[in-house]
Amino acid sequence: MDWRIITVGKPGHAWVKAALELYWQRLKHHGRFEHIVIKEGSLAQVEAQMTTASEHSLRVVLDERGKQLRSVELAKWIEKQQISARKRVSVLIGGADGHSDSFRASADVCWSLSSLTLQHDVALVVLAEQLYRAHAILRGEPYHREG
Amino acid sequence: MDWRIITVGKPGHAWVKAALELYWQRLKHHGRFEHIVIKEGSLAQVEAQMTTASEHSLRVVLDERGKQLRSVELAKWIEKQQISARKRVSVLIGGADGHSDSFRASADVCWSLSSLTLQHDVALVVLAEQLYRAHAILRGEPYHREG
Repeated sequence: MDWRIITVGKPGHAWVKAALELYWQRLKHHGRFEHIVIKEGSLAQVEAQMTTASEHSLRVVLDERGKQLRSVELAKWIEKQQISARKRVSVLIGGADGHSDSFRASADVCWSLSSLTLQHDVALVVLAEQLYRAHAILRGEPYHREG
Repeated sequence: MDWRIITVGKPGHAWVKAALELYWQRLKHHGRFEHIVIKEGSLAQVEAQMTTASEHSLRVVLDERGKQLRSVELAKWIEKQQISARKRVSVLIGGADGHSDSFRASADVCWSLSSLTLQHDVALVVLAEQLYRAHAILRGEPYHREG
């Protein structure tokens, strides 16, 4: 299954790139993990570009008002997509303006990474680690230990 | 107010250090932000060291079962500590084994950053960004925008 992670605004700090490289490298046998950056603009412009960039894929919006997942639930969700032969999932991380209500409503799934407001680079790193963790859970690897 | 962030196990990847340096640099006028690393060992050994390292300070434990905060609530909590002239806060991030029930119960406060299980380096970066965000909220800076 291929993943397209879509964020808004100029690429972040060097540490964000280093963190993503680490997780994408670890995930390379599990599909293509691609990070797409949308140019900043009005919310309408940004969301139009996000819609285009996520065409022909399941759309997951990350938003504080979304469903809070546990890591094992994310793993089960991914497994379900794999079983149903899903080809591509896009994960959309809003910029400083977040997502509009209508955009959020149009998504297939809406998840919340945290009740805290995460800066979008930080959200990106959290997401990358969760995708790695979910795949480790599905492979039964010791990376994930339940508390 | 001084902050002591305590984690377990060998210092993480270079990107974690770069991220922390960025946020500590931005926070330097708001107190001392210190990252203390406890040597790995049995849970009892780790918690004994954590107890020593957090002496004479308010103890905040990060744990998935803790209270989920919004960023503005964290800011208000910090303001309350400042008003009551709190000198030092320690934030304790467990290693792969998490925290024992008794250790968690002995803490002054227990927060959850996410319903997801975050790798401790990732939790550290999320926390650092939240401390920066909380101070930006208290100063009325535009860094934090409500969705």
